[in-house]
Amino acid sequence: MRRECLCLLIVFAISFASGIRYEPTWESIDSRPLPTWYDESKLGIFVHWGVFSVPSFSSEWFWHDWKESKLPGIKAFMADNYRPDFTYADFAKDFTAEFFIAEQWASIFKSSGAKYIVFVSKHHEGYSNYPSKYSFSWNSMDVGPQRDIVGELADAIRTNTDMHFGLYHSQYEWFNPLFLQDKANNLTTQDFVNFKVLPEWYEIVNKYKPDIVWSDGDWEATDDYWKAKEYIAWLYNDSPVKDKVVINDRWGYGIGCEHGGFYTCGDRFNPGHLFKHKWENAMTIDKYSWGYRRNARLSDYLTMNQLIETFVKTVSCGGNMLLNVGPRHDGIIDPLMQERLEQMGEWMSLNGEAIYATRPWTYQNDTVNPNVWYTNKTLNGVEVVYAISLEWPSNGTLHIAAPFPSVSTTVVSLLGYQHKLNWSISSSGGMNITLPDLKGDNLPCQWAWVFKLEGLIKQKRKIPFRMPKFDVNKPPHPHYRPNVSYH
Amino acid sequence: MRRECLCLLIVFAISFASGIRYEPTWESIDSRPLPTWYDESKLGIFVHWGVFSVPSFSSEWFWHDWKESKLPGIKAFMADNYRPDFTYADFAKDFTAEFFIAEQWASIFKSSGAKYIVFVSKHHEGYSNYPSKYSFSWNSMDVGPQRDIVGELADAIRTNTDMHFGLYHSQYEWFNPLFLQDKANNLTTQDFVNFKVLPEWYEIVNKYKPDIVWSDGDWEATDDYWKAKEYIAWLYNDSPVKDKVVINDRWGYGIGCEHGGFYTCGDRFNPGHLFKHKWENAMTIDKYSWGYRRNARLSDYLTMNQLIETFVKTVSCGGNMLLNVGPRHDGIIDPLMQERLEQMGEWMSLNGEAIYATRPWTYQNDTVNPNVWYTNKTLNGVEVVYAISLEWPSNGTLHIAAPFPSVSTTVVSLLGYQHKLNWSISSSGGMNITLPDLKGDNLPCQWAWVFKLEGLIKQKRKIPFRMPKFDVNKPPHPHYRPNVSYH
Amino acid sequence: MRRECLCLLIVFAISFASGIRYEPTWESIDSRPLPTWYDESKLGIFVHWGVFSVPSFSSEWFWHDWKESKLPGIKAFMADNYRPDFTYADFAKDFTAEFFIAEQWASIFKSSGAKYIVFVSKHHEGYSNYPSKYSFSWNSMDVGPQRDIVGELADAIRTNTDMHFGLYHSQYEWFNPLFLQDKANNLTTQDFVNFKVLPEWYEIVNKYKPDIVWSDGDWEATDDYWKAKEYIAWLYNDSPVKDKVVINDRWGYGIGCEHGGFYTCGDRFNPGHLFKHKWENAMTIDKYSWGYRRNARLSDYLTMNQLIETFVKTVSCGGNMLLNVGPRHDGIIDPLMQERLEQMGEWMSLNGEAIYATRPWTYQNDTVNPNVWYTNKTLNGVEVVYAISLEWPSNGTLHIAAPFPSVSTTVVSLLGYQHKLNWSISSSGGMNITLPDLKGDNLPCQWAWVFKLEGLIKQKRKIPFRMPKFDVNKPPHPHYRPNVSYH
Amino acid sequence: MRRECLCLLIVFAISFASGIRYEPTWESIDSRPLPTWYDESKLGIFVHWGVFSVPSFSSEWFWHDWKESKLPGIKAFMADNYRPDFTYADFAKDFTAEFFIAEQWASIFKSSGAKYIVFVSKHHEGYSNYPSKYSFSWNSMDVGPQRDIVGELADAIRTNTDMHFGLYHSQYEWFNPLFLQDKANNLTTQDFVNFKVLPEWYEIVNKYKPDIVWSDGDWEATDDYWKAKEYIAWLYNDSPVKDKVVINDRWGYGIGCEHGGFYTCGDRFNPGHLFKHKWENAMTIDKYSWGYRRNARLSDYLTMNQLIETFVKTVSCGGNMLLNVGPRHDGIIDPLMQERLEQMGEWMSLNGEAIYATRPWTYQNDTVNPNVWYTNKTLNGVEVVYAISLEWPSNGTLHIAAPFPSVSTTVVSLLGYQHKLNWSISSSGGMNITLPDLKGDNLPCQWAWVFKLEGLIKQKRKIPFRMPKFDVNKPPHPHYRPNVSYH
Repeated sequence: MRRECLCLLIVFAISFASGIRYEPTWESIDSRPLPTWYDESKLGIFVHWGVFSVPSFSSEWFWHDWKESKLPGIKAFMADNYRPDFTYADFAKDFTAEFFIAEQWASIFKSSGAKYIVFVSKHHEGYSNYPSKYSFSWNSMDVGPQRDIVGELADAIRTNTDMHFGLYHSQYEWFNPLFLQDKANNLTTQDFVNFKVLPEWYEIVNKYKPDIVWSDGDWEATDDYWKAKEYIAWLYNDSPVKDKVVINDRWGYGIGCEHGGFYTCGDRFNPGHLFKHKWENAMTIDKYSWGYRRNARLSDYLTMNQLIETFVKTVSCGGNMLLNVGPRHDGIIDPLMQERLEQMGEWMSLNGEAIYATRPWTYQNDTVNPNVWYTNKTLNGVEVVYAISLEWPSNGTLHIAAPFPSVSTTVVSLLGYQHKLNWSISSSGGMNITLPDLKGDNLPCQWAWVFKLEGLIKQKRKIPFRMPKFDVNKPPHPHYRPNVSYH
Repeated sequence: MRRECLCLLIVFAISFASGIRYEPTWESIDSRPLPTWYDESKLGIFVHWGVFSVPSFSSEWFWHDWKESKLPGIKAFMADNYRPDFTYADFAKDFTAEFFIAEQWASIFKSSGAKYIVFVSKHHEGYSNYPSKYSFSWNSMDVGPQRDIVGELADAIRTNTDMHFGLYHSQYEWFNPLFLQDKANNLTTQDFVNFKVLPEWYEIVNKYKPDIVWSDGDWEATDDYWKAKEYIAWLYNDSPVKDKVVINDRWGYGIGCEHGGFYTCGDRFNPGHLFKHKWENAMTIDKYSWGYRRNARLSDYLTMNQLIETFVKTVSCGGNMLLNVGPRHDGIIDPLMQERLEQMGEWMSLNGEAIYATRPWTYQNDTVNPNVWYTNKTLNGVEVVYAISLEWPSNGTLHIAAPFPSVSTTVVSLLGYQHKLNWSISSSGGMNITLPDLKGDNLPCQWAWVFKLEGLIKQKRKIPFRMPKFDVNKPPHPHYRPNVSYH
Repeated sequence: MRRECLCLLIVFAISFASGIRYEPTWESIDSRPLPTWYDESKLGIFVHWGVFSVPSFSSEWFWHDWKESKLPGIKAFMADNYRPDFTYADFAKDFTAEFFIAEQWASIFKSSGAKYIVFVSKHHEGYSNYPSKYSFSWNSMDVGPQRDIVGELADAIRTNTDMHFGLYHSQYEWFNPLFLQDKANNLTTQDFVNFKVLPEWYEIVNKYKPDIVWSDGDWEATDDYWKAKEYIAWLYNDSPVKDKVVINDRWGYGIGCEHGGFYTCGDRFNPGHLFKHKWENAMTIDKYSWGYRRNARLSDYLTMNQLIETFVKTVSCGGNMLLNVGPRHDGIIDPLMQERLEQMGEWMSLNGEAIYATRPWTYQNDTVNPNVWYTNKTLNGVEVVYAISLEWPSNGTLHIAAPFPSVSTTVVSLLGYQHKLNWSISSSGGMNITLPDLKGDNLPCQWAWVFKLEGLIKQKRKIPFRMPKFDVNKPPHPHYRPNVSYH
Repeated sequence: MRRECLCLLIVFAISFASGIRYEPTWESIDSRPLPTWYDESKLGIFVHWGVFSVPSFSSEWFWHDWKESKLPGIKAFMADNYRPDFTYADFAKDFTAEFFIAEQWASIFKSSGAKYIVFVSKHHEGYSNYPSKYSFSWNSMDVGPQRDIVGELADAIRTNTDMHFGLYHSQYEWFNPLFLQDKANNLTTQDFVNFKVLPEWYEIVNKYKPDIVWSDGDWEATDDYWKAKEYIAWLYNDSPVKDKVVINDRWGYGIGCEHGGFYTCGDRFNPGHLFKHKWENAMTIDKYSWGYRRNARLSDYLTMNQLIETFVKTVSCGGNMLLNVGPRHDGIIDPLMQERLEQMGEWMSLNGEAIYATRPWTYQNDTVNPNVWYTNKTLNGVEVVYAISLEWPSNGTLHIAAPFPSVSTTVVSLLGYQHKLNWSISSSGGMNITLPDLKGDNLPCQWAWVFKLEGLIKQKRKIPFRMPKFDVNKPPHPHYRPNVSYH
């Protein structure tokens, strides 16, 4: 066992076994090591489901964009299809979920190769997908499905898969009158936090024991208002998930990208270089919405090429990818999304070795070949570098410049191909890897190819962590709004 | 002005003008004089409206009787007419109220001769008929009508009539998980009271300034749990309605019929004799339900004879009658109920003199003629006794024994008839009043006739207040349950 | 047995027993004697139920008045309560009829004293209340109730009562494209009649064997277009109801009030004098609509006084009254309508002797007392005249001038009162009947009083049948349209 | 111009220009040449939309399989999600079509490379997607969308594309009472045909002028019952589409695969060899249903490989492929289906030369290489044979044996690749074509590759038309029924 790992283990042993207690300060909270399972997982599935899945139009911000932003497309949609006095809550009755079978979802999610899921227990609309004690009549047991969706899904995931089960929960509720009242009081009162936010935070953790607590809807108030540090201290010290739980960074204005567990920074965050801290790229198959949109155009969905490219870059740069799907109101996951997930899984079943439990290498992107991204891991005591090429070179040779090969020891192979590959030092100093003569449709996979490099010459890390160039807090978590037009 | 009145005025002057403050004790609360407008009003209209008006089946206890009592009739009704997973909250969307025009209601209520109304701002289901800050998504603005029903009605009543506007509000909510949690804790916790009950009590009074605060749903916990005394002290000391507000007695287990403002004791309380304290007979036109029942049989509605008889007995014995109607989900008040109210008003327009602002007389029911009930008032300085006969004697003579007439001064008349009536002392000592020769359909009214007796011989009150014979607290406010059968 | 009766019997015997066959000419059709049960019945109940009972707004002409007349009130109602593309047929799904229990209806109708009912099997909307073979998907089995309403009601009426069961059926359908096509062809084609009208006429008679065939919707085309005479000839000659069936007169433009069975002339036809032919006053409790209107005002319903007055005049002048009720979409008959029917029945149970099986007398309305109307019958071989007074004279004497009394033989009594009444010849020649000393609420009934005159002097009939002064065909059957205003 | 073509043209000129009239006999009908546009088109899009798209469960046979076959899965679905009395017609109101934009559909269909569409104007349920005069209240104008769907789509197709517009129309209606009555009469009566089928046949052709009349629902009765021959004679002689219309073969029991225009035989008919007559393979992307199924599994959809293989075989054997999609009730075409269509179009844009306007070659399937299928056409006066390989040979050489190459003249190329390919005579007598060195993902397309062979040695046709081995009339058009299970 190599030395760093040992050190890490020691740190863990201390923190977990010796009963270290965290203080409700960021310094203390940030000192807790991230449980390793999270970093090793690389791919998670994000699921947005709620009353917004009933209109399933525009986005999961439907209510806000209708009543607050007053988007003309949404107003036209309502005027054309509902009686004038129809309210948002009137949609809830039709959140029927008749085809929701948690085992089927578990199977679909698992087929993608993901190692965890993050399910929306409550979005900004305030409707909870479980019988919250603090959301009487505005939850999935009281109106609509008459089911404990979170509970059913948690059971199915745990019973049928080895994926970790996490929960997304919005602190903010657009139209909760208690929040609006606190806001009208310039957030000098905290009725909303005391009567609603905190009780629910404790409730979902005690009840469903999620491995991930994915906070959102934080940006309109500080972490002090939300009493976030106190809650996290409880999570880390006393909660039933204290040993394995992972949290994100959306705990108050100015906190994102600065404190917490992994950093999500903004939605679809993908810096393109190594980042200062473990991070997650939360993104969607539908480019424009987290919730299901019935009238999404085909071109609104990411293609497999785009998905794989995004994923490879994310992992190379040290991130996890949290891939979002928005089920329909009846519980069906759109077949196109299912196909994307299944194809992700096909790729992963072949190339997962270059993904799971890897760490960023010295280089993320090759120095001369922009199509190649790297990952790194120690396999059976041997250091391995994976060069992932987003294209299959048309001239039969993959040219890369970042690795320092050793003519005597470096061995190159292609995942999914059983023979070793020939390679040579190129005149300009990099490696030229001769591709196997795989014609036509005989390639091991369709979208990106992994070249496994073993026995490279070890060099000192000379590339420092590069800091992000953009200010992730301005605006903190911009809500992307498609230019909705309703005929 | 007579002496008692003067005394009373002095008491009022002291309490209201000199800034007496009430303590949160029953002794102090009970010491506050009841504002006179209430006792003088005699007739009020009670209105039960809510989500229960959508199924409008069985009774306003529909939810409870379906899920808790599991009445077979309701289960059959649901099985026959709704999908299996239909929830109670799913009904709310169809609480459309499209025909609710508050001015029309005001006009209908006023037509009855009532002097106040008590409107259900929230029943045990928890749904509030106004945009409560503490009932997000479970109120008439968020789901269903999208209107502030309480506000519209308050305005219409105040603008178009001289009736007092009061609010019924249930403390208890059958299925509110906060209440259920307190209950599971043996009521040692008060989350429900702190987060829900009290905030709403303050909210409705500050927002709608009701002249009556009609509490209900108190029986499962003590007044200490409900923090009732503290709230009432605020109502009496500092609320915007402190000078004119009237409260009832349903403030906790054991309090009904013992403390508070007027006493309601049980539903349809009508003791039949003078009662120890100002009281109110809260009753319904539909004998079996406060909420609208679509399939009520004609025989389930009280006839005018029954209504007038109940009313006359109530007023004679010192009570007010609070006559309930349950509007339909669309805002229509059933025409039969409208007709009953209008006919009440016809009777009152002729006989109101014997009702409004009267007080119980020495006798309530005549000593020999069981059809005759008395009221009493001082009119232009003259003591008047009203003998109200529920039947028109077929032999042309009304025989009564309670009054002490004076042959020289006692004058008898019939309200609605312009001439004085002859009378004589009967052999057995009572009065024989000769009825006018009003044949056929020429009677002044149809249902009960008022004989006005002026110049009686004054006697000392020798009949003590009689105490009720039944124990009104066991059960406190029984929920009457019709034997529902659904074909 | 008196002579006329014998003659009549002979005529009947000939026509029914000897197999007289009617020709498809009005002369032949009109020659058929009206089966006696109809004339003797006097009171029938008319029931309008259909898809229009779902919006239950404006009137049963809702569809027409929305799309064709474009009444602003209906347009506002739709705009306020439904999505813009909502169609009339979209209402049908909500014609749920969940409280429709045919036995209850039978009991309610019977309680009125009526001897027959006429149920709308299909109104101008075209929706049939039974599974018509010619109205696929637009009938009560295919959409909405999923029940054979006509069949259930026919069974219940026949099993539980001795009332005759009749059917109203509209020939015309406002928006049936086959009819519109015939119309566009100036009615030179008859596709609608051949494919729809006639097949349904045969269908309802063969299937439900109604005792009354009440045609409507005839006015836009001639009896030739409708092929009415041929159909009626079949009804009279070969149908399963040929011996007892009664028809009305709405069989084509210009036919109403001229040919057929009994004459209905216009809606609410009530000429106020003797009429040339047996006729029927089809009228409604709701003055403005045959179908249920949710927002009818109380003042829109006829009072019992108005109902009894209308009925007495109708019967005196030789008509039957067909009293209409419009049930709600859920199958409930409005309680106020139930009460009116029950009170009609109370009156009939006391006074039916003066109504059932009577015939018009020499005079209909008294010559000097406008409140008195007459009927006549032979009871146990004795000629009896009934003087029905709409008011109870305040002076204790009923003065009438039409009868020729015999001081020696004429006996006067009051129905519901056991003693004979005194009477005298008045100075002006009429009778003065001394009313019994029934004071207050001791009258036998509330709304009209029947004085039975036996032993009058027989006079020759000198009053000719008076012909109606109005032209009943212009417009033939005007659709009364309330000035609907929707807030 | 080659000789056959000239002959053909002459035949056409005679039949169309000289006013040949067809008799209502199959001999005469079958003598009409098929308009060439149809055979040249090769690919059409079939669209099943109707009330069945509302439940969108099980299949478009939902109604039949629920009420007639009583499939347990459908019964469970209804029991779980609807009130007990819910009828099939009750679904129609929710056929909202709010996202149906005909121009979008036209664009999606066109993207597939199809040259015609066949839209369901009416399926066996009887609901017409246009305002049929003969389907009052059971059509898309009267209930549901309130739109003329057929009309909108016809316009959009014609305005925005050069595709031909065709209509599918079912003669049979499962539950039409007129049909059931004829059937009960052993089809000795024809009320259904006279009142419904024929009027609608004429209506849709006169109104929408479809280039294809695609009959279905024929199998329960003979062509005589349906009066099919008379109708087709009108179509060919006098209808507005007489010159270009194409019909199929489903015109009565025993007619399919024997008479009419192109033959469809059974659903998904794909004989795998040359067929005696121009035929069409009507098939679906969802293997189990023509109508949309919400809960179709991903594995229920054909993959692109399967689609292309089916298509290539179909065209090689002389068929057209009619590729079916079932839109959702709201007008959305499932994105996965959109993607399949778009990918078909990508393939066609490259390889259409080998598909459109081709004819079967001497051989359909290669004699030694089962992955290769042939088409043939004359291009600029030169005979060209297309060898379509479903796989890309892994050894770099395509071996085929059917063509007779000429070493001096035969030229081989690959569609989408700009250079000529080397080839040689193989030792066993066939051709060995050397594949270009297209590695990895640089192939011109993904699913099947077209090798163009020019300058082959012409041989006499020695392979006779092979007749199908199965009896296509037993059962005529089997309704495939998935083994539906509803949790």
